[in-house]
Amino acid sequence: MRDGFLRACAGEAVRPVPVWLMRQAGRYLPAYQEVRERFDFLTLCKTPELAATVTIQPVDILGVDAAILFSDILIPLEPMGIELAFSEGKGPLLSPTVRSEEAVAVLRPISPEEDLPFVLDTIRILRRELEGKVPLIGFAGAPFTLATYLVEGGGSKAFAHTKRMMYEAPGLFRRLMDHLTDATILYLSAQIDAGVQAVQIFDTWAGVLTRQDYEAFVLPSMHRILEALSDRGAPRISFVFNGGHLLDLVRAARADVIGLDWRTDIAEAVNRIGSDVVLQGNLDPCALFLPEKGLRERVESILCQGRSAKAHIFNLGHGILPECPPEKAKFLVDLVHEVSLA
Amino acid sequence: MRDGFLRACAGEAVRPVPVWLMRQAGRYLPAYQEVRERFDFLTLCKTPELAATVTIQPVDILGVDAAILFSDILIPLEPMGIELAFSEGKGPLLSPTVRSEEAVAVLRPISPEEDLPFVLDTIRILRRELEGKVPLIGFAGAPFTLATYLVEGGGSKAFAHTKRMMYEAPGLFRRLMDHLTDATILYLSAQIDAGVQAVQIFDTWAGVLTRQDYEAFVLPSMHRILEALSDRGAPRISFVFNGGHLLDLVRAARADVIGLDWRTDIAEAVNRIGSDVVLQGNLDPCALFLPEKGLRERVESILCQGRSAKAHIFNLGHGILPECPPEKAKFLVDLVHEVSLA
Repeated sequence: MRDGFLRACAGEAVRPVPVWLMRQAGRYLPAYQEVRERFDFLTLCKTPELAATVTIQPVDILGVDAAILFSDILIPLEPMGIELAFSEGKGPLLSPTVRSEEAVAVLRPISPEEDLPFVLDTIRILRRELEGKVPLIGFAGAPFTLATYLVEGGGSKAFAHTKRMMYEAPGLFRRLMDHLTDATILYLSAQIDAGVQAVQIFDTWAGVLTRQDYEAFVLPSMHRILEALSDRGAPRISFVFNGGHLLDLVRAARADVIGLDWRTDIAEAVNRIGSDVVLQGNLDPCALFLPEKGLRERVESILCQGRSAKAHIFNLGHGILPECPPEKAKFLVDLVHEVSLA
Repeated sequence: MRDGFLRACAGEAVRPVPVWLMRQAGRYLPAYQEVRERFDFLTLCKTPELAATVTIQPVDILGVDAAILFSDILIPLEPMGIELAFSEGKGPLLSPTVRSEEAVAVLRPISPEEDLPFVLDTIRILRRELEGKVPLIGFAGAPFTLATYLVEGGGSKAFAHTKRMMYEAPGLFRRLMDHLTDATILYLSAQIDAGVQAVQIFDTWAGVLTRQDYEAFVLPSMHRILEALSDRGAPRISFVFNGGHLLDLVRAARADVIGLDWRTDIAEAVNRIGSDVVLQGNLDPCALFLPEKGLRERVESILCQGRSAKAHIFNLGHGILPECPPEKAKFLVDLVHEVSLA
């Protein structure tokens, strides 16, 4: 197996630098689009053979150093009693919204084996199919990000309902966070039991918080999750999108790997939280529109900065865009390998 | 006239600390809603008596220390040949989108006196009506933010079209930025000629850029605007939303006042760019949902941090939310005055 990704997670300065891309299984790939033409998004997530197929596509097509389970962070909310709909272009819609004592109280605890067997079956298929190839990453949404979707009923710009609940009813908001934290621990543990070799926790929206609120409402939950998974043998990656101002707090939760978006230069991150850290990132997904020369310069700069950390895993700073030409993604993966060996 | 705001802009550590609120003239005020029930948003912007009326409302109702012209950052795009529509809940829509050589080439230069007389007339009315009360702030959108609206045709999440143009056709993107920079200088100069006593430049979306791209594509334009307005006697406030990672670059453009959102603590800003700076901000607009005790603690903390800067103007970190109770906004303004005198 190409084990560079796992060795880097463990703190080894691997050459070539391992690379994978957030949303590497997705719309930019014609092979994925072919599957999606026949099945809707949720069917795809819930049918192990299909989910496994699209998970493997970028491993074969791009030559990335890790596969990441094809799923969605909102999937574990369904067995809590939430109805989930994905409409093209409008983002996810969740109902009912969770804004009251009652709504939080009726959220059901989840049992991943019973409620989400398709995820675990997908993992089992993938481990067989990826045997001797690359490691498999599992993932979950972080409790705060899941809470925003529940409270807002979908995406949001100002997250006013979420913050309002946090400010007007902090005890209630903490109960919601606790419920989601428990579920996330169970869900990621089950993924590890089923075979994922690393886990990434996506906190897509925690970056909208002040440091004070992150520390009070989110950090305890992240700490609890990371602690609960600390002796499971699967490295834990923590990614907070747009979370540059929270970096030292994110660090304090002690994940094995910290993901960065393109706003926080890796050199700056090392300056702020020290070099004894494994960093993952951080090319702007839009940089894939650069001509090859410009793209090479950015990759060289990121790899050069990555040398100041204990270890570096190359990635984008956010999901790859549907408009990205697949051959450019392949070019990027090859470039990371080539430049980091030189 | 209550001149605390202007004295703070000039670097004086004024007590009480002056306060105004971004979007203080807006939907959260019943008096504003009454006007809006009779006129649509663009009519309101383009009718001097109406625009002046809603500009003054928060001065009387909240007791803020400055008025800010009621208008919209997209207004100066219309005379360039762009059609502008505001649909409730969906944000602005602009047509045609500006993504090609041709589309940039046909953008007309603006002449504020001929094209936007209603803005200048609003300012003239306001100066008479605010005489002896509070100073009047004019404003414009920063060229990058305007460019995103032109290129995307409205709001965006990933700003992929904008960045794509920047990366694939940097010369064309620079021509677009130059056009918008010229227009912004003319527009703000005309506002100053008509009587505004300070100007704020809103860069709502530059925070989506890497430092490298901000420095290459945005900073020269901001520098040119601020330089062109440097001897006009009206202090220049630069506000980049979500721009914590750009703070030293924003500082390098040498505005008189730098606005901060809630993500960057004022103390941290002073650490990074020094204390010889006037800072404006930075309460999370959602903090207005806090009970009075919690709100007071946040205000005290911000005011305390503000003492580490050369001068401080209290504001929100973004526009006040439509859901904010007006009496809470009034409470905030009084609180800032009371706490900063103690």
